[in-house]
Amino acid sequence: MALARVARSGLRRSGGVVDSNTTERNIFFERLSGSLEKINVHSNLTSLSTIKGLNHMNFWSRGIRTTPHYQFPLAERLVETESESEHDEPRNPGLEATKPGEKPRVVVLGTGWAACRFLNGLDTKAYDVVCISPRNHMVFTPLLASTCVGTLEFRSVSEPVSRIQSALATSPNSYFYLASCIGVDTNKHKVYCETMSNGGLPYEPYQFKVAYDKLVIAAGAEPLTFGIKGVKENAYFLREVNHAQEIRKKLLLNLMLSENPGVSEEEKRRLLHCVIIGGGPTGVEFSGELSDFIMRDVRERYSYVKDYIKVTLIEANEILSSFDVGLRQYATNHLRKSGVQLMRGVVKEVHPKKIILSDGTDVPYGLLVWSTDLPNFKGLCRIGIDEWLRVPSVEDVFALGDCAGFLEQTGKPVLPALAQVAERQGKYLVEVFNRMAKEDGGKAFSVKDMSLGDPFVYKHLGSMASVGRYKALVDLRQSKDAQGISLAGFISWLIWRSAYLTRVVSWRNRFYVAVNWATTLVFGRDDSRIG
Amino acid sequence: MALARVARSGLRRSGGVVDSNTTERNIFFERLSGSLEKINVHSNLTSLSTIKGLNHMNFWSRGIRTTPHYQFPLAERLVETESESEHDEPRNPGLEATKPGEKPRVVVLGTGWAACRFLNGLDTKAYDVVCISPRNHMVFTPLLASTCVGTLEFRSVSEPVSRIQSALATSPNSYFYLASCIGVDTNKHKVYCETMSNGGLPYEPYQFKVAYDKLVIAAGAEPLTFGIKGVKENAYFLREVNHAQEIRKKLLLNLMLSENPGVSEEEKRRLLHCVIIGGGPTGVEFSGELSDFIMRDVRERYSYVKDYIKVTLIEANEILSSFDVGLRQYATNHLRKSGVQLMRGVVKEVHPKKIILSDGTDVPYGLLVWSTDLPNFKGLCRIGIDEWLRVPSVEDVFALGDCAGFLEQTGKPVLPALAQVAERQGKYLVEVFNRMAKEDGGKAFSVKDMSLGDPFVYKHLGSMASVGRYKALVDLRQSKDAQGISLAGFISWLIWRSAYLTRVVSWRNRFYVAVNWATTLVFGRDDSRIG
Repeated sequence: MALARVARSGLRRSGGVVDSNTTERNIFFERLSGSLEKINVHSNLTSLSTIKGLNHMNFWSRGIRTTPHYQFPLAERLVETESESEHDEPRNPGLEATKPGEKPRVVVLGTGWAACRFLNGLDTKAYDVVCISPRNHMVFTPLLASTCVGTLEFRSVSEPVSRIQSALATSPNSYFYLASCIGVDTNKHKVYCETMSNGGLPYEPYQFKVAYDKLVIAAGAEPLTFGIKGVKENAYFLREVNHAQEIRKKLLLNLMLSENPGVSEEEKRRLLHCVIIGGGPTGVEFSGELSDFIMRDVRERYSYVKDYIKVTLIEANEILSSFDVGLRQYATNHLRKSGVQLMRGVVKEVHPKKIILSDGTDVPYGLLVWSTDLPNFKGLCRIGIDEWLRVPSVEDVFALGDCAGFLEQTGKPVLPALAQVAERQGKYLVEVFNRMAKEDGGKAFSVKDMSLGDPFVYKHLGSMASVGRYKALVDLRQSKDAQGISLAGFISWLIWRSAYLTRVVSWRNRFYVAVNWATTLVFGRDDSRIG
Repeated sequence: MALARVARSGLRRSGGVVDSNTTERNIFFERLSGSLEKINVHSNLTSLSTIKGLNHMNFWSRGIRTTPHYQFPLAERLVETESESEHDEPRNPGLEATKPGEKPRVVVLGTGWAACRFLNGLDTKAYDVVCISPRNHMVFTPLLASTCVGTLEFRSVSEPVSRIQSALATSPNSYFYLASCIGVDTNKHKVYCETMSNGGLPYEPYQFKVAYDKLVIAAGAEPLTFGIKGVKENAYFLREVNHAQEIRKKLLLNLMLSENPGVSEEEKRRLLHCVIIGGGPTGVEFSGELSDFIMRDVRERYSYVKDYIKVTLIEANEILSSFDVGLRQYATNHLRKSGVQLMRGVVKEVHPKKIILSDGTDVPYGLLVWSTDLPNFKGLCRIGIDEWLRVPSVEDVFALGDCAGFLEQTGKPVLPALAQVAERQGKYLVEVFNRMAKEDGGKAFSVKDMSLGDPFVYKHLGSMASVGRYKALVDLRQSKDAQGISLAGFISWLIWRSAYLTRVVSWRNRFYVAVNWATTLVFGRDDSRIG
């Protein structure tokens, strides 16, 4: 059931992609929310395909502001008072268009997989680069679930962007701006930004603009909530390091609260019921980590409540639907043996202490983690791009990662919202950019009929997921129906760990991840509740 | 200038100590705030010696709730609606008095140095133990300043209480309760507690009571603000791990905000002005860490603003006043060379963006850290104790650490609020307790005329402080006027690091501290701004 609403921003939706031909003032994406709430075709959950117009604050700040505790009322207020004409006032500070003789300026929106792979490879002798994002680091998302229970430290999975591209910190005309993008004027080749507010402290956010020669939009997407009531208010997402911190704090708080006197049996059971919605790799890995934590650490250190803590994974269809059937079966058995209850169900409403499923079942919970992965999704609303990741009908704008999707006329298949896809697109695009610079195509409006080389082709290298207790799945088939190697068990777990360890960006974090793993093995997990 | 206000709670203040003889219902400390805002005799700062009555929330939750962002409106509301009679209602859950034949129950309030040293040594074959605290870990405070700039990770300086005393997690009648103590009835031998609220999430705090055979109060003290207007609202303290986290976030935010376009020179200078109030060891160490961070990491990664960042240390008298004069001179010179501005001044008021000194000077700041150490303090209001750390005139109640002070009639000197004192008192008291148990004095009202052995005598082992750039001070004199060894420089820094490394409680954290130090040396400090 896919409902599509077209927003007031004058964008036309066609075949699951956004086409900007009809924008009136050609202020492309002016205040268009990047919060593309998507159709999840492999799930029976009620879904909404929406592009919210005028939802100023959500534009590519995805994930950062979605966990309930982080609200920025100050910023919301500004939306009301701001008038559009202000964008053009001369007192607006910012970076003016580059002059002839200066290096062309690439503006990158975002610090996720796509943006960081792009930043990492950019030839900074040929380009100046400005990165704009509300967070100053990349998150190594495949290992994020491990930080919730203390297997890894939070800092081991975050990589400061200045370590990814040092020019941002040291090159005279390159900058990192901690800010949100609130609009793009593709005619004038400018992005409009608003600085981060200070979370209640006395600092007023203000706006500035940055002129670009090339714009790379890699702003990600909001987590999928299918418009279900109560999800944003009550569930924790698992996309940012501070989400993991919140989950950890909540889990430890519930463990300790349930040990206090005067808590009824029923209430203990509710407080210690951890529910995960979504049986994709993230949901499964988090379930596995939780059950490891319970079996090893909770049993040792919370002996009074160890029999009350339970983990339930709710999925509308099958868990790990993109994996080989044998691996799926293995994962199901393994999770069951580890004490994870697998439940088929479609969430109808989320209340502060219980979930209501569409069949009327009540599921009381103490911790709710919302982790709906998107292995593939036809009909999804994303920024439409051609085979060279260009946004058509505007010049010098590129989009990649979760926020972008191929136009139907390219004939390219829809790509899953995976780190793997985003990273490959970043790698492809930066090669295109470096080639453009060599052929003097770096400046605004200078590409003309220049050939950009081969179009982007995605080749899936396979999928991995850990399931807890030193076991993992490795599926090296290139697609769901293809033949290929698939493994499950301890060897897969070794492959899983080694593969991710080599993917960690910096040597510092590689070292820390290894040290964290070793100490967890020797000393168990730390359970100090900080903050 | 010491103004003393005696609170409404019926406690009489005499000679700097609290005497409970006059409490009406003998509900000792009923809602007495532990927030003893003290006289700092070695400082010219305007000082107030206050015992706040009815300031329910501050009772030994000291430090945890004092940084402005952590407000618990829910808990405050409860104060108004709660009636005293509720304490005695039978439906109040909790632990009843121990029966004959059961082990005596020791209740420990707090998880600081004194409490944890006591917990660590307690003979759990002889006693059941209940620890009540709003935090479930001990903070290794001497290394806390290092975590603000990323030299150490936050978790490396926090030690879960169940790792300090495993009986709390595993022994059938021992418990750790995450709660605040709101009152003590010394007649009935009961403490009244309130569970932690969930920080805005749907969980109502409620009250419970715990009967004790022996009560150990080691609840610490609130940071000293001398009643100066605006300190609590605008300054960061440096006593808990989450304080360090907040300082770090603020510092990195200010660095990044000041790189955004449209920030005036003056505003950059203000944003990047880090002001530390208090020239004791904590203030000096934090200044040293900050200047290290600036010289090594900020210069590399924030090249646009490196010339704007400044550190100022404001102290009313001399810095490190308890140290040898030669060491003081060394520290002064070293800090000056490292770019730390040393300023003599008395703070009059603190505003959101500036401090006003008593001579009328305005000091604009971007980050303000309040760290008023208390090397010694005559006339300070603390819980009065005798030479065996007993609270006089009530039975089976002991107090130690920052919240306790010798009664004048004991003739014992005032002791500084140092980890060293607290730890030594914890060690002493636990030996008394273990001896009492052997002589069947563990149960309530059973001590009678039993000898508790030698009284507590404090012998100062010396002081240490690091000053940045691989330099530290080591002062091994037993008192300010005694003769003894004092060292400054690189060797002292090695002694400083080794000494603290051996003091870290668990092997896990010892390992992590060493690893953190090594990685900081090799890779520099991490500057991801999480959350």
